[in-house]
Amino acid sequence: MSKAIKLVSQSKCYGGFQCVYEHESSILKCTMKFGCYLPPQHEKKKNLPIVYYLSGLTCTEQNYIMKSGFQRYAAKHGIVVINPDTSPRGFDLPGEHESYDFGSGAGFYVNATEEPWKTNYRMYSYVTGELPTVVASNFNVNVGKSAISGHSMGGHGALIAALRNPGKYKCCSVFAPISNPSECPWGVKAFTGYLGENKSSWKQYDATFTAKEYDGPKLEILLDQGEDDPYLNDKQLLPENLANACSTNKHINLNFRMQPGYDHGYFFIMSFMEDHFNFMAKHIC
Amino acid sequence: MSKAIKLVSQSKCYGGFQCVYEHESSILKCTMKFGCYLPPQHEKKKNLPIVYYLSGLTCTEQNYIMKSGFQRYAAKHGIVVINPDTSPRGFDLPGEHESYDFGSGAGFYVNATEEPWKTNYRMYSYVTGELPTVVASNFNVNVGKSAISGHSMGGHGALIAALRNPGKYKCCSVFAPISNPSECPWGVKAFTGYLGENKSSWKQYDATFTAKEYDGPKLEILLDQGEDDPYLNDKQLLPENLANACSTNKHINLNFRMQPGYDHGYFFIMSFMEDHFNFMAKHIC
Repeated sequence: MSKAIKLVSQSKCYGGFQCVYEHESSILKCTMKFGCYLPPQHEKKKNLPIVYYLSGLTCTEQNYIMKSGFQRYAAKHGIVVINPDTSPRGFDLPGEHESYDFGSGAGFYVNATEEPWKTNYRMYSYVTGELPTVVASNFNVNVGKSAISGHSMGGHGALIAALRNPGKYKCCSVFAPISNPSECPWGVKAFTGYLGENKSSWKQYDATFTAKEYDGPKLEILLDQGEDDPYLNDKQLLPENLANACSTNKHINLNFRMQPGYDHGYFFIMSFMEDHFNFMAKHIC
Repeated sequence: MSKAIKLVSQSKCYGGFQCVYEHESSILKCTMKFGCYLPPQHEKKKNLPIVYYLSGLTCTEQNYIMKSGFQRYAAKHGIVVINPDTSPRGFDLPGEHESYDFGSGAGFYVNATEEPWKTNYRMYSYVTGELPTVVASNFNVNVGKSAISGHSMGGHGALIAALRNPGKYKCCSVFAPISNPSECPWGVKAFTGYLGENKSSWKQYDATFTAKEYDGPKLEILLDQGEDDPYLNDKQLLPENLANACSTNKHINLNFRMQPGYDHGYFFIMSFMEDHFNFMAKHIC
């Protein structure tokens, strides 16, 4: 596995640098881009804490770095922020680019087992394995001080990453996550395509199931959900099912906040970004 | 002139609402969109102060509302923020859509006198006349408490709006403005096309000239310029010429800040947005 990375773009931002890098992913077998915010402290300090942020359907690494305003808080707390793309890129598999909610831009952070996806669509291993290794090799970070965050499909990804890897991420911050994908239209479509019809293989990628079984170090989760989010009303997100699962597990402390009037987009996310960085900083700084 | 507006989109953001409206512009003779941030104070308080923000080349009303993070500061200070599009829309004039720096997305905030532009390309009158009238008719604002801001081509627009309308805007905040358009390639191309070859007609739209003649109430200008801005090095911006003009005019107080390492984009703008809102709030809140 190559740990080499190549700088694609770099702009000074809040005294640090918002960068985009690309590298050859051996797991996904393609060139992948990721955002990397290096806070002002990066030049002098070593062992900086890390936040990983996973984006939602249709996103690339650009959406979060352009629209969320997180850099202000990462700069304040001295956190390196890594945000990967949402699927492998550069292929032309049958049907890969036909839907906004399956294939490119919609990797769902699983390791596919079905043809033709299983060779490349391995975002779970990429996000929890290869990418952290690449980051640790290239930046002044302390991998023992990592948190993971995400939005919508990326909130699902952040939850399963944290719940399936006890201790690897010190806390988990999610905005309007797909919380019970086995039971919502987006998740059923994606899991059927990537994992096949056998629903027993879906549970490992469903936060509501994995939250029931989690028995690692106390996991703190901050979840913000807009009350006027149309996907909440469409039963795509089902955060109440995750809340029920967490309520019976003493190893998890879920702070579930309904936010009146907010919808599903980045105007919602930016409004609560400071809270999420304050929350994560308490656990990793 | 119709003052009617129609809501296009609305999302809760920092306790207020980021809206986009459209209306029929009688000056531009087309449907125009503008961003409108209503801070949380809007529901209870009347006579709120207003900031107008003018965007740069290629932008619509979307760029600023998605990328700058201004809403946090507008919410804090209780300011209504209005940001128009950068040109008339919906026409297909000869050559209108061929260049990024002329025609659609590049109205340059002038009233064109040349064919085929003079009927519709009247962004100066739109921004300083029609739009404020529409805003005053539809929102709980105090037009006596207005400030104007902008970036690049929009910085040029903000400067000439403030310099040519003494007292109308209490202060002016600009990021990397095109400060002496008569002397830079972007400006020469735009002014030749919209205003013709006679350079005497250009001066009224050139901040470096109008700053020499300004004799209204003391005008405070905050100007931030990235030192690593490629357009600064290409002599498109020429802020030093504006600084020279202001230095000899006791009616203007220009705070000209060079920002080491910053470029021309929104990562630069977002980094100093708080300073600009603090500056404007001092004059209009």
